[in-house]
Amino acid sequence: MIPSNEIIAAISTPPGVGAIAIVRVSGNGCIDLVNTVFKGKNLSEQSSHTLHFGNIMDGEKKIDEVVVGLFRAPHSYTGDDIAEISCHGSAYIQQQILQLLLQHGARMAKPGEFTLRAFLNGKLDLASAEAVADLISADSESSHQLAIQQMRGGFSNHIKELRKELINFASLIELELDFAEEDVEFANRKQLNDLLEKLHKAVADLAESFRLGNVLKIGVNTVIAGRPNAGKSTLLNVLLNEERAIVSEIPGTTRDTIEETLNIHGVIFRLADTAGLRDTSDVIEKMGVERTHEKLQLAAVAIYLFDAARMDEEEVLSDIESLNLKDIPVILAANKSDLMNIELEKKKFPQLNNLIFISAKESKNIIELKEKLFDSVFNTKIHNGDPVVSNIRHYDALMKTLSAIDDVVKGLNSKASGEMYALDIRRALDYLGEITGEITNEDLLDNIFSRFCIGK
Amino acid sequence: MIPSNEIIAAISTPPGVGAIAIVRVSGNGCIDLVNTVFKGKNLSEQSSHTLHFGNIMDGEKKIDEVVVGLFRAPHSYTGDDIAEISCHGSAYIQQQILQLLLQHGARMAKPGEFTLRAFLNGKLDLASAEAVADLISADSESSHQLAIQQMRGGFSNHIKELRKELINFASLIELELDFAEEDVEFANRKQLNDLLEKLHKAVADLAESFRLGNVLKIGVNTVIAGRPNAGKSTLLNVLLNEERAIVSEIPGTTRDTIEETLNIHGVIFRLADTAGLRDTSDVIEKMGVERTHEKLQLAAVAIYLFDAARMDEEEVLSDIESLNLKDIPVILAANKSDLMNIELEKKKFPQLNNLIFISAKESKNIIELKEKLFDSVFNTKIHNGDPVVSNIRHYDALMKTLSAIDDVVKGLNSKASGEMYALDIRRALDYLGEITGEITNEDLLDNIFSRFCIGK
Repeated sequence: MIPSNEIIAAISTPPGVGAIAIVRVSGNGCIDLVNTVFKGKNLSEQSSHTLHFGNIMDGEKKIDEVVVGLFRAPHSYTGDDIAEISCHGSAYIQQQILQLLLQHGARMAKPGEFTLRAFLNGKLDLASAEAVADLISADSESSHQLAIQQMRGGFSNHIKELRKELINFASLIELELDFAEEDVEFANRKQLNDLLEKLHKAVADLAESFRLGNVLKIGVNTVIAGRPNAGKSTLLNVLLNEERAIVSEIPGTTRDTIEETLNIHGVIFRLADTAGLRDTSDVIEKMGVERTHEKLQLAAVAIYLFDAARMDEEEVLSDIESLNLKDIPVILAANKSDLMNIELEKKKFPQLNNLIFISAKESKNIIELKEKLFDSVFNTKIHNGDPVVSNIRHYDALMKTLSAIDDVVKGLNSKASGEMYALDIRRALDYLGEITGEITNEDLLDNIFSRFCIGK
Repeated sequence: MIPSNEIIAAISTPPGVGAIAIVRVSGNGCIDLVNTVFKGKNLSEQSSHTLHFGNIMDGEKKIDEVVVGLFRAPHSYTGDDIAEISCHGSAYIQQQILQLLLQHGARMAKPGEFTLRAFLNGKLDLASAEAVADLISADSESSHQLAIQQMRGGFSNHIKELRKELINFASLIELELDFAEEDVEFANRKQLNDLLEKLHKAVADLAESFRLGNVLKIGVNTVIAGRPNAGKSTLLNVLLNEERAIVSEIPGTTRDTIEETLNIHGVIFRLADTAGLRDTSDVIEKMGVERTHEKLQLAAVAIYLFDAARMDEEEVLSDIESLNLKDIPVILAANKSDLMNIELEKKKFPQLNNLIFISAKESKNIIELKEKLFDSVFNTKIHNGDPVVSNIRHYDALMKTLSAIDDVVKGLNSKASGEMYALDIRRALDYLGEITGEITNEDLLDNIFSRFCIGK
């Protein structure tokens, strides 16, 4: 997967038949290559950022009437020359044009290879390149916004700056090591300590933001729990039915995965109904309850639904206790509010915070419930505009950086020799560099770009 | 569906997710419209056939980084201004950009509306516009070549010329009618007769070519018939398995409909196995045999397979007679040649032409069988380069033209009054004009373009 001068080609539009498809070719000499199968103007003589109508010919046989767009290095996506052939979108034509290009010396592009070249040519850093794949698979406003921010720098710039400061100190410390016998101190220990503290906080904040970034990107696992007949399935249906109605208003939208997701302010909430919670001796029912507990383990937020007329505060508290939901927000929803006097009922539950009265059956207070759901997840310390990490590879590297920084701090405090913590600083630098791609290797790149789609 | 100055927009690439998608906008003012949501250069000031990198913005929110291609009227596909927004191929982004354009005054393009505008603006005649839809759905070399020939004139030019000559005569005859009392003859009857004869032959040849054009376009219905245990299913599998192997060699190809089709020299043969042919009293089996006869009705070619060791010539001839296949070619394939001495067996069937010995089980002579299949269908009077009609609407109009010409000839021969055959000439002119779109109406256009895909 290492850079090469080969000319790569791929169908870049979605697979299948449509009005238009695009076959993309990149690499030095690619415009001359396309020119050999193009009848029209001499493409080799045309300037960058121009469009040319003509025919793609296989010898004397006309394959299609096309428009070819030219981008000349370095002013292209990859940084190399690019030709984009816009043809009629029949599967047959797409294949014929691609085959023709392969016969004339191009080779099939690997998944993500155009973006890999952009990275290798310095058009994007690694985290930004990864955001291109996220952008293409983004299916909600929040995941889309995360990706588009990251695609133009996002937190990479922040990390690059921190890393640069650390590099300065690292070189001073390594210089000290060269003069070890003279016992000089080029690197001010106080300043190093301050920098490490600053760095630790910045990296910890970024790592912390992953919790939010991850849910923004993949959605919020949401569980609806409660005793049998609390109305869980009715609530699920009310939430989802409304969603389906909203979605079907958008012209041309097809959302296969709508079934169990809810979009609140652009964030996807993945809803799961659960079996009723109750100690039981019935084996089948027991299995259902076990699955409920499994789902609760994965949940980022839970709605505990109960019938206020039939339960007292003690029972509710005991249920919640038994759910073992310490780390995630729990919304308490008193259902069947249509059958009761809410003001009177409220007095029955003086200790319950976060309580909302709803009627799943009559769709009452459902909007308020959704707002509560949203706020409970996004009631977060992260401010708008703060960099947010959403990629588990980045999170992993940040956690390793933190541990390396901890080791440096320990070394400094214990007055260990500079050689020891110089190594730890180097480790921190490597982990940070892996995020932006300043430090990289073939396996890492292979791993990252193989998850792209072909043609990007 | 009548022309308008509205700006139309659609996603023109195949539906789904890919590296790149294209949102196409056309209509006067469309470049200014796109410019209002584009951050980059001022698109309104840029020349035709240029590409521009920038951002699509929904107010302050960045939707995507895109490249916009500009085509200015009349040098565009539709003949009006066109802007093509090449964005990242996420379903979310495609929808967002389309919605944004709709909010800013564009409306959703109807199926085929870009091509309809091209027709209305005189960029294509009607038969050529129809060929665009054929081109996109073409899935074999033959259907592709037919469509691409027709897209740039094909037989429309031929028809336009014939029609022009007929129009000249029609005006002379109508002139005669104006001077009816003076009994003049502006139109030379001999020349009119010659023209009608020439026209009749040309139109009849075109209509005749439909038989070929239709199979080139939609494929050749091919039936394998024979008695039970002749080896029909084995032969079907041998033919199809080889095909699957060939297809899977082509990189990136997915052919959902491969199951029962065979591609010989770029032409699709649709294979159907049939129940064994035999007089039977069993009801279920009888139904099977009836279905066989139904399939035979639709077939364009048949392979009659038999076990040469077990049948004599008389039985074969009687079977073929009972198949009632007068109008289509029948290939006689003696199966199980692996179990016999071919030279000896041949002598058993002195009257059988078109006989080929094969072994389905051992894949012997299968290539020769395929060649025979191809030749039997394409052993035709039509020469390479002759115009070929593949559209049933055109065929229908040609047949109606023929009948109108017949009426004119009859009128001329019976020395009927000019008024009579002037009407028939007008009818012939109308039918011919409907093919090229010189004569048209809203229903016809609606009907034609509604079968296009959106975005074309």
